[in-house]
Amino acid sequence: MRLELMTSPAVEAYLGKNSGIVVPVGTTEQHGPDGLIGTDFLCPETIARRFGEQSGTLIAPTMAYGMSQFQLGFAGSMSLRPSTLAAMAHDIVASLAATGFARIYFLNGHGGNLAPLRAGIHEYYATRSFAGIKEPAAVHCRVKSWWEFPEADALRKALYGNGEGSHATPSEVAVTMAAYPDTIKPFVRPAPPPVDDTIIHAGDNYFDAADFRRRYADGRVGSDSALATPDAGRRIVAAAVAGLAEDFESFCQSK
Amino acid sequence: MRLELMTSPAVEAYLGKNSGIVVPVGTTEQHGPDGLIGTDFLCPETIARRFGEQSGTLIAPTMAYGMSQFQLGFAGSMSLRPSTLAAMAHDIVASLAATGFARIYFLNGHGGNLAPLRAGIHEYYATRSFAGIKEPAAVHCRVKSWWEFPEADALRKALYGNGEGSHATPSEVAVTMAAYPDTIKPFVRPAPPPVDDTIIHAGDNYFDAADFRRRYADGRVGSDSALATPDAGRRIVAAAVAGLAEDFESFCQSK
Amino acid sequence: MRLELMTSPAVEAYLGKNSGIVVPVGTTEQHGPDGLIGTDFLCPETIARRFGEQSGTLIAPTMAYGMSQFQLGFAGSMSLRPSTLAAMAHDIVASLAATGFARIYFLNGHGGNLAPLRAGIHEYYATRSFAGIKEPAAVHCRVKSWWEFPEADALRKALYGNGEGSHATPSEVAVTMAAYPDTIKPFVRPAPPPVDDTIIHAGDNYFDAADFRRRYADGRVGSDSALATPDAGRRIVAAAVAGLAEDFESFCQSK
Amino acid sequence: MRLELMTSPAVEAYLGKNSGIVVPVGTTEQHGPDGLIGTDFLCPETIARRFGEQSGTLIAPTMAYGMSQFQLGFAGSMSLRPSTLAAMAHDIVASLAATGFARIYFLNGHGGNLAPLRAGIHEYYATRSFAGIKEPAAVHCRVKSWWEFPEADALRKALYGNGEGSHATPSEVAVTMAAYPDTIKPFVRPAPPPVDDTIIHAGDNYFDAADFRRRYADGRVGSDSALATPDAGRRIVAAAVAGLAEDFESFCQSK
Amino acid sequence: MRLELMTSPAVEAYLGKNSGIVVPVGTTEQHGPDGLIGTDFLCPETIARRFGEQSGTLIAPTMAYGMSQFQLGFAGSMSLRPSTLAAMAHDIVASLAATGFARIYFLNGHGGNLAPLRAGIHEYYATRSFAGIKEPAAVHCRVKSWWEFPEADALRKALYGNGEGSHATPSEVAVTMAAYPDTIKPFVRPAPPPVDDTIIHAGDNYFDAADFRRRYADGRVGSDSALATPDAGRRIVAAAVAGLAEDFESFCQSK
Amino acid sequence: MRLELMTSPAVEAYLGKNSGIVVPVGTTEQHGPDGLIGTDFLCPETIARRFGEQSGTLIAPTMAYGMSQFQLGFAGSMSLRPSTLAAMAHDIVASLAATGFARIYFLNGHGGNLAPLRAGIHEYYATRSFAGIKEPAAVHCRVKSWWEFPEADALRKALYGNGEGSHATPSEVAVTMAAYPDTIKPFVRPAPPPVDDTIIHAGDNYFDAADFRRRYADGRVGSDSALATPDAGRRIVAAAVAGLAEDFESFCQSK
Repeated sequence: MRLELMTSPAVEAYLGKNSGIVVPVGTTEQHGPDGLIGTDFLCPETIARRFGEQSGTLIAPTMAYGMSQFQLGFAGSMSLRPSTLAAMAHDIVASLAATGFARIYFLNGHGGNLAPLRAGIHEYYATRSFAGIKEPAAVHCRVKSWWEFPEADALRKALYGNGEGSHATPSEVAVTMAAYPDTIKPFVRPAPPPVDDTIIHAGDNYFDAADFRRRYADGRVGSDSALATPDAGRRIVAAAVAGLAEDFESFCQSK
Repeated sequence: MRLELMTSPAVEAYLGKNSGIVVPVGTTEQHGPDGLIGTDFLCPETIARRFGEQSGTLIAPTMAYGMSQFQLGFAGSMSLRPSTLAAMAHDIVASLAATGFARIYFLNGHGGNLAPLRAGIHEYYATRSFAGIKEPAAVHCRVKSWWEFPEADALRKALYGNGEGSHATPSEVAVTMAAYPDTIKPFVRPAPPPVDDTIIHAGDNYFDAADFRRRYADGRVGSDSALATPDAGRRIVAAAVAGLAEDFESFCQSK
Repeated sequence: MRLELMTSPAVEAYLGKNSGIVVPVGTTEQHGPDGLIGTDFLCPETIARRFGEQSGTLIAPTMAYGMSQFQLGFAGSMSLRPSTLAAMAHDIVASLAATGFARIYFLNGHGGNLAPLRAGIHEYYATRSFAGIKEPAAVHCRVKSWWEFPEADALRKALYGNGEGSHATPSEVAVTMAAYPDTIKPFVRPAPPPVDDTIIHAGDNYFDAADFRRRYADGRVGSDSALATPDAGRRIVAAAVAGLAEDFESFCQSK
Repeated sequence: MRLELMTSPAVEAYLGKNSGIVVPVGTTEQHGPDGLIGTDFLCPETIARRFGEQSGTLIAPTMAYGMSQFQLGFAGSMSLRPSTLAAMAHDIVASLAATGFARIYFLNGHGGNLAPLRAGIHEYYATRSFAGIKEPAAVHCRVKSWWEFPEADALRKALYGNGEGSHATPSEVAVTMAAYPDTIKPFVRPAPPPVDDTIIHAGDNYFDAADFRRRYADGRVGSDSALATPDAGRRIVAAAVAGLAEDFESFCQSK
Repeated sequence: MRLELMTSPAVEAYLGKNSGIVVPVGTTEQHGPDGLIGTDFLCPETIARRFGEQSGTLIAPTMAYGMSQFQLGFAGSMSLRPSTLAAMAHDIVASLAATGFARIYFLNGHGGNLAPLRAGIHEYYATRSFAGIKEPAAVHCRVKSWWEFPEADALRKALYGNGEGSHATPSEVAVTMAAYPDTIKPFVRPAPPPVDDTIIHAGDNYFDAADFRRRYADGRVGSDSALATPDAGRRIVAAAVAGLAEDFESFCQSK
Repeated sequence: MRLELMTSPAVEAYLGKNSGIVVPVGTTEQHGPDGLIGTDFLCPETIARRFGEQSGTLIAPTMAYGMSQFQLGFAGSMSLRPSTLAAMAHDIVASLAATGFARIYFLNGHGGNLAPLRAGIHEYYATRSFAGIKEPAAVHCRVKSWWEFPEADALRKALYGNGEGSHATPSEVAVTMAAYPDTIKPFVRPAPPPVDDTIIHAGDNYFDAADFRRRYADGRVGSDSALATPDAGRRIVAAAVAGLAEDFESFCQSK
């Protein structure tokens, strides 16, 4: 159930029985010569909404803008500063807490979001902790990227091996092909990304947009996007939905 | 054309011929007993995307979260602080300016967003002005709410007169009925909102969520939402798209 | 009654009977070849203090600095960032609320202030709304520019028609002539401002200081300042004081 | 010369010969049973404007709001947060630097302002220092409280000795009596402030408004305000103007 | 070589040959009944300084305060807000970049620091990316926790297995025993921490200080601190120093 | 007693009898050709820890990073922005207040820290004051630089007279020689600093790093560092410890 398509009384009724909500979060950034710019928010949105339909869980509107400062060297990329995304996460947690939610699950689709999201969530709790409040906050949060669910992770590795890479991956491209079949076109760059000896492990380094562009000339980071197929996308979505269902359930049960 | 469904090279090609983009922006908040919680972002999104399809104009991902602090007394409402929304507007302008856009058109669907959006845009320019830069910024911005287009404004007044009110208006409800027919249900509260002598002109006063709820018991502000029909919604969308087309064109031509 | 010229016990006595206060707010920026740099705060200050004398209403010290980033291309202009002015508005509301005021009326003299002022006021309420406080905030705010009062607006249009323009207007220049007769000098640029086909409606666009200067070479925006006379200034002040009296009274009575 | 009463071309002409400006800064807070709430900004404003008239130096609009959080326990007190006042100081420095000023002299009237003002000024320079810019900033700043000028300091001590105290001092009350003779009334509390063994040296401790009120029941901190006379006020103003003249001159000459 | 014990000319000489520096960062928080409050910064400090002595690498002063909001329910814990730690990381990167460093290695000792550190580092790069600068930033950063080095990680698991847990771990306690032998005392709580079925995986959840205290009554999170010995500490330090040496070298060589 | 070397239960026991703590705070910046970069934090750290050992007073971890923007023109200097240091001071006060401390004594070693520290402390109290809380805050703060203690101040003047200067002073160099004898080396620049007629009184002016370097070519500000001896350092430390002991005692007794 998409929150934006419900009425307020319907949400009130939902809160009488459930206190959990899923917030899809991604970003708007280039995904190489063939990947869609919205890939990172379309994937968690697709997975979350599918889960919402199956389970009757409330799905919040998608946070389509994320932290992608290092992608601003390519047309179509947009970014929030880390401090802005953290403030946004804080406000979303505070809003949901103020209106009766107790379990907020951020389903993430972009690695660069993780630090700001976590920083923003802790900022929310810090207010209580600094005040010395003795009553634990009723609201809990969880942040998980869709490819972390074991079954989804195993599947993408089985399907693509080294070709998966870490940006404009065939698995995320496959998910968008499954979700938006109208956007499927012949790959303009069907070859693997240029091999670069200086490629380093994702997350090991930090740089700006000019540096990113210098390193990754066509925008992909070790990912052979053209391995993607819509059928694989459907399988990956199914695996991720199953993973989300299990993890969200355990999260809502946790004390 | 939705930015999120394009590739980066396609955006680069677009920028070779155009420099304008439309950013739909709304909020997530209660809309009375019958209106959808997403109404304020679904309306500008619907209008902007329709315009994008007709004209080949680029439409950015929707900013679904806005400034609705006074609505947090109702289930399903969510809000950014004004400072957060201003920071977000700043970052979006800065991102688009950094990647080659020169005309940014915020199509708005929620009155409470106007001040933070404008503050954030000026914050962007302030950096240049304080630095004493002599070269004018290449990027210009415009902020317009969809009901401001003369034809759309005239239509909603002709259709609903006093029943239009100012929150959960039949015109915005009609637009969501046209755009999301699956959500249409019999109105649970078909009567006009409770008449309240203390109702004041929108924008004349400022209050918090508790005060809003005290004043507007069922969430509507003078709006007889049940007057809405999907057919009227289609006419309103068409009028707004025409207004947007004309205004966006003149904006892109402006120096 | 000017707050700065009263003692704290006198304010305490006032609060026993009234809870309203007027805060004049303007900015410090060029007003063309002949207008005073302080015009935008001297006007609301003059009107507010006149009203305070007539009615015994408390008038706070004038906020002389506002948001004028786009004016920094001219000598004598000064500006706060939007975020700074918003923080200032927040603090003034919070201060007055903490010390017993319940109706805060910002009498404004500069269009560029509106967004930051409103953003700052909402930031104050947001704290309460996010906390889920059930008791409405006792303090309410109103923001009004002095030329919005119907009688004052009609008068300036009757006096100056198209010559009124939107910056360094003859009406605001007239008010400063009435209030500061010692500053009256022969107009150095008695001609209307250069006609520019690219002039666009105020508020429709956003730009930086370099762009403003490029557009409006002598600093005026369509305003024929030299039409101003001190006598007209006195009439405009009288009309605005009457408008303020009525609006402030209704604001204080509002619930 | 008051900046607000000049035109932009006149400021441009001034800048052709001078690059210095004085910015009076104070606060709005209770000054005991008899002192004026505006005392802390009226004093530097009076001294600065007198100096401006004598010397033809440009005097900026007064910053009437300052950092007085500890005074919010008394009616009529208003405060900016330290971070807000720092941001304001930053913006004023940045504005004046962007428009050609090179020597900015903050003439202060309230001890609580010093830390935020200094923090804000350093924030301005920090931007350049972090950027590794090799060209020294053209603009310099000085912050001085009017009672620091040796002659003024000696005079107030000679006049009032221990009765001077540190808040609602007879010297500052005397200055307002000289500047605003219409406000002179018989002292309602002609006695010295209650003697309190727990009184501690100003600046040695930090507390909130409730603590301040607990310590200083009638709002005065060791000051026998009723010793003030308008004649003494005139002498103090003259001494401070002379001190300012000398210090401002040396500041403008400094490299 | 500790930066704080060097002179500026010596640093200048160092920069002629090297551009890398290690910044130890931890936090100040309770570590159960027996662990030291400084454990999280003493560990990376010990490891970094040992590495500095061996290799002649520059070691910056330790960041002793970190993000520990959830620990504020125990005496001796202190915390920065996430936004404060992020600002601090930004400033440290900006300072080192401005003075000629090109490789900044944060050696971390506290999981709660990771998100704010990363957010702050990206904030630094965001300024360049938003400005559309085409020259890649010369400075690169790496963030690594000392237990991530494969040899150190293997050793702690081999030594303690499940007893390692995730807070007040025997491995970190062992390091402080090796580094500060004077602080060694008989364990007051030699038993394993209370078994709690509700214990959840570290990083999977977010809560405030009251909630943390409710969950982990004696402050330890699954860690059997009393397994620690100074001899094991020495071995862990040696393993971590070796890991740091290798990783820092590869970082400095990276392009 | 160093907080970082204690356990949480030991701190809890301490709080049963005492509520005071000393927080050493300095900065990381060049100290001329011979002074250590850490001088400004090593001095208060040395003095505070000595006092802690003698008296059993709790000493918090040293704040090694401070506000030194004007020193960023020399290798080895690092700085926080004023706003960052203020936020850090706020958080430290809030943390200690939340966990039961009532008297927080910042022992400072760097003049540039004073404004941000004070601004940050007032920011903490402002939250309470704006909220109109009637109960005084339990926590009080004091900020004192170690050279302000009368005995220490007299000693450094007696030892060095004019050679003391104001940066890289022989007194602070002497303290580091006493505390870190291993760092003692022959002075590379045994001569007094270059005499400069433009040298101005410390604190009278504000500038950026480029300007500082232009003025003070070898980094010293009027200080003849080479007068320092370790023996004098020991005497200065003893004097400062005695001064701290007396002042801290009176602070803890104050109401």
